[in-house]
Amino acid sequence: MFESAELGHKIDKATYDKEVPVLREALLEAQLDLAKTANFQVVILIGGVDGAGRGETVNLINEWMDPRHIQSHGMGIPSDEELERPIMWRFWRALPPKGKIGIFLGSWYTWDILNRVFNRIKNAELDQSMDRNVRFEKMLNDEGALVIKFWLHLSKDKQEKRLKAMEKNPKTRWRVTERDWIHFKMYDKFRKVAERVMRQTSTAEAPWMIVEGEDERYRSLTVGKVILEAIRKRLDAAELPPHEVHAPPLLPSIDKLHILKTLDLNQKLTKKKYDLDLEKYQGKLNLLTRNPKFKEMTVIAVFEGNDAAGKGGSIRRVTSALDARYYQVIPIAAPTEEERAQPYLWRFWRHIPRKGRVTIFDRSWYGRVLVERVEGYCSNVDWMRAYSEINDFEEQLVRNNTVVLKFWLSISKEEQLRRFEERQKTGFKRFKITDEDWRNREKWEEYETAVCDMVDRTSSEMSPWVLVEANDKNFARIKILKTLCEKIEVALK
Amino acid sequence: MFESAELGHKIDKATYDKEVPVLREALLEAQLDLAKTANFQVVILIGGVDGAGRGETVNLINEWMDPRHIQSHGMGIPSDEELERPIMWRFWRALPPKGKIGIFLGSWYTWDILNRVFNRIKNAELDQSMDRNVRFEKMLNDEGALVIKFWLHLSKDKQEKRLKAMEKNPKTRWRVTERDWIHFKMYDKFRKVAERVMRQTSTAEAPWMIVEGEDERYRSLTVGKVILEAIRKRLDAAELPPHEVHAPPLLPSIDKLHILKTLDLNQKLTKKKYDLDLEKYQGKLNLLTRNPKFKEMTVIAVFEGNDAAGKGGSIRRVTSALDARYYQVIPIAAPTEEERAQPYLWRFWRHIPRKGRVTIFDRSWYGRVLVERVEGYCSNVDWMRAYSEINDFEEQLVRNNTVVLKFWLSISKEEQLRRFEERQKTGFKRFKITDEDWRNREKWEEYETAVCDMVDRTSSEMSPWVLVEANDKNFARIKILKTLCEKIEVALK
Repeated sequence: MFESAELGHKIDKATYDKEVPVLREALLEAQLDLAKTANFQVVILIGGVDGAGRGETVNLINEWMDPRHIQSHGMGIPSDEELERPIMWRFWRALPPKGKIGIFLGSWYTWDILNRVFNRIKNAELDQSMDRNVRFEKMLNDEGALVIKFWLHLSKDKQEKRLKAMEKNPKTRWRVTERDWIHFKMYDKFRKVAERVMRQTSTAEAPWMIVEGEDERYRSLTVGKVILEAIRKRLDAAELPPHEVHAPPLLPSIDKLHILKTLDLNQKLTKKKYDLDLEKYQGKLNLLTRNPKFKEMTVIAVFEGNDAAGKGGSIRRVTSALDARYYQVIPIAAPTEEERAQPYLWRFWRHIPRKGRVTIFDRSWYGRVLVERVEGYCSNVDWMRAYSEINDFEEQLVRNNTVVLKFWLSISKEEQLRRFEERQKTGFKRFKITDEDWRNREKWEEYETAVCDMVDRTSSEMSPWVLVEANDKNFARIKILKTLCEKIEVALK
Repeated sequence: MFESAELGHKIDKATYDKEVPVLREALLEAQLDLAKTANFQVVILIGGVDGAGRGETVNLINEWMDPRHIQSHGMGIPSDEELERPIMWRFWRALPPKGKIGIFLGSWYTWDILNRVFNRIKNAELDQSMDRNVRFEKMLNDEGALVIKFWLHLSKDKQEKRLKAMEKNPKTRWRVTERDWIHFKMYDKFRKVAERVMRQTSTAEAPWMIVEGEDERYRSLTVGKVILEAIRKRLDAAELPPHEVHAPPLLPSIDKLHILKTLDLNQKLTKKKYDLDLEKYQGKLNLLTRNPKFKEMTVIAVFEGNDAAGKGGSIRRVTSALDARYYQVIPIAAPTEEERAQPYLWRFWRHIPRKGRVTIFDRSWYGRVLVERVEGYCSNVDWMRAYSEINDFEEQLVRNNTVVLKFWLSISKEEQLRRFEERQKTGFKRFKITDEDWRNREKWEEYETAVCDMVDRTSSEMSPWVLVEANDKNFARIKILKTLCEKIEVALK
C-alpha cells in the first residue's frame, strides 16, 4: 500500500520554480470555472502520518488558490456544541456548497484510526465505522461532490529524522509535541491500521491518493496537480449524471520515480550458487508442503510480469518441488464464452483449491488492472472498482487460511528486446513471440504506470506483492522459491 | 420494516386462477427474451421466516418457468468441498451465466443471521459480514446482474398457527422439524436481527422485497409479478451501461391491501375525554422534559401526513407543553438557494439540536421519497438510494441518544375534501389551501403507494413510524402526545 511513498521522491528547486507558476495559474482558472458553473463541490481530505506535512499542505493550497472559493477546516478536538450532536454533524456543517472547495485537515477517519491504534476499539468496530465512511462518501458522490482523499506518508526512518530535524530548528521546535513522539512509538501499529483503512475505503468513487511527504516540493506539486486534474476532469464530464462515477484520476509520479525503477534488475546468481540454492529451497518447499499442518491451509501464488520475463520457467522450478496430486497450474488466457457470461472474478473463483493444495496462476485477475486497463478493454470505472473487488476477494482467501503471494517478474526493456530477438532466432521458441508482444512493448511506460498503481492499491501485509528482479533468471527463481518457503513457514506456525 | 407483511394479504381463488395463466405466459416470454439477448443474469434470493413458504415458492417458480434457463440451489449444510474454501465459493460456483436465472434458497445471509440469533457472533461481526454482502451485490450489479431479494415474512401468531397446522396434516407433518420449533421460540430475536440486516443491506441496487408468506396465492402471485416486472424493466433498459443502477421496481400490493387501509380512521375522542387527556399528557410531557436526565438526550419528532391532516394543530399541542427555550419547530418548504447547493440531507443536519432539546420537523427529509418521488422531482435512483441514506442518518441520531419519532397523520379522501371545502369557505383559512393541494389530491393513490414503501423501508424498532388516525383531530393529538411521552419515558430509564 505504501510502497511508492517510500522511494524518496524529490523535485529539484529549478523544476519546482518553473512548474509552480503554471500550476497556480491553472488551479485558479479551474477554480474560477468551478465557481462559475457551480455544478459540484470539491471535498479534499488531508490525512496521514505526523510530520508528513499535512498542515503545510493545507496552507499551501490556501496560498495558491483564490481564498473566496475555498474554506479550510482544522478538525481538532470537537467543541461542546459538536460533542452534543452525532459526530458527523461537524463535517456536515462544514461541507462546501457547489462551486466551492472545502479542505479538511483531520476528517471522519482521524478519530477511528487513533482509537484503533490506542486499542480503544477493536477491528470489528473499526470496520463498522469505515463502512459508514464509505456510505457517506458514496452519498457525497451520488449527490455530485468530488471527493479527493490524500494520505501523506513517511517511512518510519524518515518520520524519525523529520521529527528530530524539526526539534533542532528553533523555528519549528514548537511544532513537535510529546504527542508526536508517542505517536511515533506506535508507528508500526499506526501503519497497520492505516493500511486496513485504506484497503477498505479506497473505493472507485473516492480512492485514497498516497503521497510521500518528505520532500516538500514533491509533495506540494503532487497534491496541486492531482487537485487540478481531478477538477478539470470533472468539469469536462459535467454532462454526465451526478451518480456516474468520475473519480479523481490516477496520475503517474511527477518526478518519474517509481517502484520498478528502484529495483536492481541486474542482481545475479552464479550457476554454482544457483544449483545449491535450487536444491536447498526446492527441498525445503517439498518438506513444508508435506507438513501435517499443511493440510489445513492453502497456497495461491500469482505470477505476473513483463512479457518474456520468465514466468513459465519460474513456475516449473516451483512445481517440480511439489507432489503432482496437490498442485495445479492455471494458465489465464482470454476468457472462454462461458466465462464471459459471468462476473469478472468467476473464472478465478472456480479454480480456488481445497485445503492442502497449491494453485499457481500464470497471469491472473490482475489482467483487469493491467492489460484491460492499458488496452481499454474495459471502462475506467470497471478497472477502478476492480482494486477493491480484488482486495475483497483476496481478503476472503486469507481469512480462509490461504497464503496469497503475488510475484511481479520485472525485466528491463533492453533485456526484453534481447529475449524477443533470441526467441525469434530459435526455432522451437519462435511460437512464444507474437505480434501482440511487440505491440505491448510499445506501451512500456503505460504498463509501468499500471503496475505501480496495482502494487500501491493491492499490496498489503495480508497479501503482498513481491517484486522480482528477473534480468537474471537464476536470481529470480531462487528469490521466488525462497519467498514461498518463508511465507509458508510463517503460516504453518 | 415488516408492517405491510402482517396485514393478512389474500388473493381469492377465482382471481388467482384467472391471473396465473397470464403471468406464466409473460414470465416464459420474458425468460425467452432474456435467454436470447443474454445481456444479464438474474440472481434471486428466497429468504425469510420458517414456514413462510420458501421451499414452495422455489418449486413454484421452477414449475412456472422454462427449466432449461433456470437453476435452483438449495444452500443447506455446506459440503466438505465447500467447507475447505472461502464460504462465498459455493455461491460463486452456482452463479447463473448471462441469459439465465439462478434461485438461491438459503443465501449469503442465512448463516450470519442464524449465528447472530444464537449469539455465536456479535452485532459488530454481523455488520462486517453484511458489509461484505453489500459489496458482493454491488459487484454483481456492476457486472450487470439483476439481483432480486425476497424475504418471506410471517407474524409471530401466524407462524405458530402455520407450524401447528402443518403438524396436524399427515401430508405435511414431516416438514415440521424440531429445529422449526426452536427457531420459533427465537422469533423475536430473529425478527430483530432480520430487521437489522434488511436495514443495512437494502440498497438502491438490490433492495429487499418483503412479502407476507401466509396466503399461498398472494405470495406466489406477488413473487411472480415482481420477477416479471424486474426482468422486463431491465430488458427495456438494456442500452444503459451495466454499472447504472436499475433495481427491481417497487410494485404496489397486488391485492390492493396496504397499511393505510387497515387504519380505523374514524376513531374518536369526546370533547370531555380530550380535555382531560390533553391536560394529562401535556403535563406529563412537560415533566419528562424537565427530568435532569433529559439534558443528556435529544428528541426529534417528524410530522408528515396528507394535506390538511392537521399537522400544524398537533404540533402546537406538543409545543405548548414545552419550555420555549428548549424546543424548535422547523417548517420544511422548498429548499433555499444555499440548501440546493448542498447534498440533500444537509438542510436537515443543520437543524439537529444539542442535548436536552426537542426539535420538531413540520415535513422533513421524507419529502425525497414522497413528493419528490411522486412528482418526479428526482430520478428513480435518487429516491431509491434515499431510503438507505435516511436510515444511515437516523441511525446516527439514535446512536447519539436521540429519540426519533415519525408521525404519519392519515385522513380519508372524503375527510380531506370536507376540510378543503371548509377552508375555502372560511376567510382566514383560505390561504391554507392552494392549487397544489388540489393537484396532489388527484395523485392520492400514488402518494399512498409512496407512503407504504416509506414505512416499509424506514420504520424500525430504532426509529419507528407511528401511523396516526387523524379524521378526528382530538384523537390524533392525544395519540401523538401519548406516544411521545411513552418513548421519552423509555429513553429516560
